[in-house]
Amino acid sequence: MSYVQMWKGRDFLNTNDFTQEEITQILDAADDLRNKYRSMVPTNYLPGRTIFLLFYNESLRTRNSFEAGMFQLGGHAHFVRANDLYTPSLPEDMVAYKTEAVSDVARVMSRFGQAIAIRIYGDAAKWIIGRGHKIMELFAKWSSIPVINMEDDVYHPTQALADMQAARTARPKLQGKKFVVSYAYSGGLKPLAVPQSEALITTQMGMDVVLAHPKGFELDDNIVKACKANAEKYGGSFEISYNMKEAFEGADFVYPKAWSPKQFMMPYGPKVDKDGANAYQNKYKDWIVNTELLEKSGKPYYMHCGPADRGQEVTDDVLDSYENSLYFDEAENRLHTEKAVMAMTMP
Amino acid sequence: MSYVQMWKGRDFLNTNDFTQEEITQILDAADDLRNKYRSMVPTNYLPGRTIFLLFYNESLRTRNSFEAGMFQLGGHAHFVRANDLYTPSLPEDMVAYKTEAVSDVARVMSRFGQAIAIRIYGDAAKWIIGRGHKIMELFAKWSSIPVINMEDDVYHPTQALADMQAARTARPKLQGKKFVVSYAYSGGLKPLAVPQSEALITTQMGMDVVLAHPKGFELDDNIVKACKANAEKYGGSFEISYNMKEAFEGADFVYPKAWSPKQFMMPYGPKVDKDGANAYQNKYKDWIVNTELLEKSGKPYYMHCGPADRGQEVTDDVLDSYENSLYFDEAENRLHTEKAVMAMTMP
Amino acid sequence: MSYVQMWKGRDFLNTNDFTQEEITQILDAADDLRNKYRSMVPTNYLPGRTIFLLFYNESLRTRNSFEAGMFQLGGHAHFVRANDLYTPSLPEDMVAYKTEAVSDVARVMSRFGQAIAIRIYGDAAKWIIGRGHKIMELFAKWSSIPVINMEDDVYHPTQALADMQAARTARPKLQGKKFVVSYAYSGGLKPLAVPQSEALITTQMGMDVVLAHPKGFELDDNIVKACKANAEKYGGSFEISYNMKEAFEGADFVYPKAWSPKQFMMPYGPKVDKDGANAYQNKYKDWIVNTELLEKSGKPYYMHCGPADRGQEVTDDVLDSYENSLYFDEAENRLHTEKAVMAMTMP
Repeated sequence: MSYVQMWKGRDFLNTNDFTQEEITQILDAADDLRNKYRSMVPTNYLPGRTIFLLFYNESLRTRNSFEAGMFQLGGHAHFVRANDLYTPSLPEDMVAYKTEAVSDVARVMSRFGQAIAIRIYGDAAKWIIGRGHKIMELFAKWSSIPVINMEDDVYHPTQALADMQAARTARPKLQGKKFVVSYAYSGGLKPLAVPQSEALITTQMGMDVVLAHPKGFELDDNIVKACKANAEKYGGSFEISYNMKEAFEGADFVYPKAWSPKQFMMPYGPKVDKDGANAYQNKYKDWIVNTELLEKSGKPYYMHCGPADRGQEVTDDVLDSYENSLYFDEAENRLHTEKAVMAMTMP
Repeated sequence: MSYVQMWKGRDFLNTNDFTQEEITQILDAADDLRNKYRSMVPTNYLPGRTIFLLFYNESLRTRNSFEAGMFQLGGHAHFVRANDLYTPSLPEDMVAYKTEAVSDVARVMSRFGQAIAIRIYGDAAKWIIGRGHKIMELFAKWSSIPVINMEDDVYHPTQALADMQAARTARPKLQGKKFVVSYAYSGGLKPLAVPQSEALITTQMGMDVVLAHPKGFELDDNIVKACKANAEKYGGSFEISYNMKEAFEGADFVYPKAWSPKQFMMPYGPKVDKDGANAYQNKYKDWIVNTELLEKSGKPYYMHCGPADRGQEVTDDVLDSYENSLYFDEAENRLHTEKAVMAMTMP
Repeated sequence: MSYVQMWKGRDFLNTNDFTQEEITQILDAADDLRNKYRSMVPTNYLPGRTIFLLFYNESLRTRNSFEAGMFQLGGHAHFVRANDLYTPSLPEDMVAYKTEAVSDVARVMSRFGQAIAIRIYGDAAKWIIGRGHKIMELFAKWSSIPVINMEDDVYHPTQALADMQAARTARPKLQGKKFVVSYAYSGGLKPLAVPQSEALITTQMGMDVVLAHPKGFELDDNIVKACKANAEKYGGSFEISYNMKEAFEGADFVYPKAWSPKQFMMPYGPKVDKDGANAYQNKYKDWIVNTELLEKSGKPYYMHCGPADRGQEVTDDVLDSYENSLYFDEAENRLHTEKAVMAMTMP
C-alpha cells in the first residue's frame, strides 16, 4: 500500500505534531485497514518486524489492539511490563539493580526491533504531570526507531485517532460539527491525557469544540492555547463552558469523561494531594450522563475512550442500549488506527 | 481440513453441551492434528487469527498448550493475566479503576480477535462455586466470538477432551471399559472441575464409570444427575463407591485426583471455611496411589490432569516409572485437542 | 543454511562444554545472521517452532533478544515468569499447589515445543551458589528438547558468545589479544556468572587473559582451573591481578563488571550474609572505570554485559561517549548469537 512506511522512522507522541492533512492520511489508512480486517484480507505489510510494548500501567484496549494489530501486519509485539525488567527510569530516579537508564533501554531495544510503544501515567509517573511525557521524550531522543505514545500524563494520541475515525464514520464531514469534550464524575484519580488529546484533535479537524467542566478542572494552559491556535488555523472554534447540559445542546458528538483537578497534582499545586483531589471531585457527582440527557440534547453520538465507570461517568443504559453510542466502535478503531501508525512509521 | 471452522462461532464451555458424536469428531480432529504435529506437517488453518487467553489463575499446561497451539495453527495468542487489565468482574463486584464489566471486556475483545479463552476458579472466584462459571457464561453472552473454558469452578472441558484422546489411544474402543474417577488426598484447596468433567465425559463415551470418594466429597447433584442421564443415553453405567481399592479392581483406567469437600464452600455451605475443608481433607491421607495398588488392581492406566501432588495424591514411582501411566500423554493431548476446538470454532 | 540444526537436540548450558572450533562455528553463524538482520533478509529457519523462556529474574536484553530472535527465525517464544505457573522446583523445595517438580515441567514442555531457555540466579536460587545451575541441569536431564542457559548462578554462556562476537568484530584475530576481566564496584548483590563465563570463553579463544579483582572476590576454584586448562590447551595465558589500573595497561579489551564476594554466600561461607557482602563490597568504590583511565591504558575496547550501574561500575561518559565502547554492540549481539544457538540446536 502507498501509505506503508511513508514516514519511516517518525515518532508518534502527540497528534498536534502532525498537520491536519497528515492526520487525515492516517485516518484514510486506518479506513483501508478496517475494510481489510472486516473482510479478512491479509495485510502483511511489516513482515518480521518487532515492536516493544512497554507498560507502566494496566491496559485492555491498548495492549490488545497493539499486539493483535502488529500480528495482523505480519510482525510480533513483546508485551513488557515495567517490572519485567529493571524499570527504565530518569537519571534522578536511578536505584542500582532496580532501574536502568531510559537512554540505555532505548538504545538496546533499538538494536532488537523496529518500534517502542510506551504507556506511563498516574502513580507510575508520581502524579507529577509531565514526568511521564518526559520519559516518553527521552525514549524518543535516544532510540533510533520510532517511539509511539500509548498514553502518558499529557497526551493519549492513539485514542484521539481512533475517536476521529469513529466520528467521521458516523458523520463523514467533521468540519463545523459540534463536539463537546466534557468532564464526567468518577471516584478514581485520572490523568488529563484523554481530554487534552481530544480537545487538540477535534480543533485540528476544524470542529466547533466546547470544553465543559466544573471550575477547577481546567486543562493545561499550553494545551488550551494550542486548541485555540488549532481553531484559528483550521477554521473551527473552541469555547469553554461550566455547564454540561448547556454544552450538550445541539451537539453532534459528546465525550463525557473523568479527569482529576490538576491543582492537586504537581507541578500545578505544591504537592500531590490525592485526598484533596478526591474530595474536590466528589462535589461533582451530578456530572453523569444518562439516556434522558442525551435524548434531550438531540441524540448526539456518545463517545468515551473506555473503560467508562458505570454509575459514575455514565449510566448502564447508555453503554448497553443507547442507539448513538460509539463506545465499542472507538475501541475497535484503536486496532485500525494503531496499525496505520505502525505501518506508516516502522522501518 | 474438513473439520476446520465446521462449528464457526460456537462456544466450548462444557463437554456435555456437545453430543457423543460431536465429541468424537473433536477427538478425530485432535488425532489428525497430533499426527501432523509429530511429523511436523504445517497446519496453517487459522492464519492471522488472534485468541485472548485470560488467566485469573496460574497455569503450565493450559497456557502453554493454547499459546503453542494457536501459533501452530497460524495465529497468535495473547497471554493476559487478570491483573494486566482492569479485572473483568461481575456487576456486584465493580470497583472504579480496578475492574471493568465483563460485558464490556467481552465486547471489546470481540472487536480485536477471534476467540476468548478463560480460566477462573478458587480464590479468583471467591470459592463461591458457580461464580467462576457465571463469569464464563457472561463472557459467552456478550462476546460475538467463541468463548473457550480453560477451567472454571464447575468444569474443565479441555482437560476432559485430552484425557479421552489419551484413553482411546490406549484402548481404541472406550464403550464398556471401566473408568474410575477417584478422590486422592492433597493438602491444598482444589476445585471440583476436573472430577466433574471427567465423570461427564466418560459417561458420555459409554464407559462403565465408578466415582470413588470418601463421604463428604460428593460432586454437585446436577452433575451426578447428568452423569446418570449420560449413562442411560449412551449405554454405559455410573456408580458411586466409598472405597478406592475396591473401586480400582479390574479397572481399565483410574483417575485419582484431589478435590475439596464442597460443604465447606458456598453456596453448598453457609460460608467459605478453608480451615474446615483442610481439616476434613486431612483425615483421608490414605487415599494415595502407589505402584503396588495399581499392580494389585490389574495394572489399569493411571491418569491425572497434572500437576499431581507427589507424596500426597500419588507416589513418585507412579509418575516416574509406572509402565501404564498416561500422565504426560494427557498433557501433550491438551495441545492437540485445544487445537481441534480452536480450528473447529474460531471464525 | 548449513548450520541450521547441525547440533539438533544439544543443550547449551556452558560455553566450555563446546570446543573452540564449535564456538567459532556459532560465531560464524551469528555473523551470517547479523548480516541478514541488518539487510532485512528473511531467516525463516525454524518455522512453527516454539521456545519457552522461563524467567525467575528480571530481564531486558535476554528476554527481548530471545523473543525477537525466535520470531525472526519463524518461530514463537513464550515469555513465562516463574510465578505464572506453579514454580518449577527441586524435590526438597516442593510446596503443594505452589510448586511443580522440575522433572514434570521439563517433560510437559517437551511435549508442546522445541526448546526450553531458563534464567535463574540470586534470590530465586537462594544465593546458594550452584543451586540455580542444578535446576538448569535437572531441566536438561528430564527434557527431550534442548535446554538453553539464559544465565544461572554459575554461567552466563549466551552473554559470553555475544561478547566474543563483538570482540572479534573489533579485532578479527582474538588469539594473543589481551583481555581483562575486572571487578568494578556496585552496591547491589550480584552473581559470579558473567565474570566466570567471560574468563572461560576468552581463555578458550586463546587470548591473554587477566582476571583483576580485590582479594576476596575470587572466582570459583573449578572455574579458575578450567580457565588455566583452556589457556594451556588453546595457547593463551591466564593471570590474576589485584590492581585494576595495572591490569588495564596495554589491554585490547577490558570488561569491568561487579560481582559479589562468594564467601558471603553458601556453600562457600557458612550462611548467606547479604549485609556482610555489601559491607565488604563497599570498601572497593574506587574500582570504577572512567574515560581518563581508559585513555591512559591505551584506549582498550570497553565491554560490559549491561545493565551497567552508572556512577558505580562506570561513569556516564564512558557509556555515552567513549569512542571504543562496545556496550551496545554486545547487547545487539545477544540477538544474533542466540539465534545461532537456537538455529543450530532446536529440532
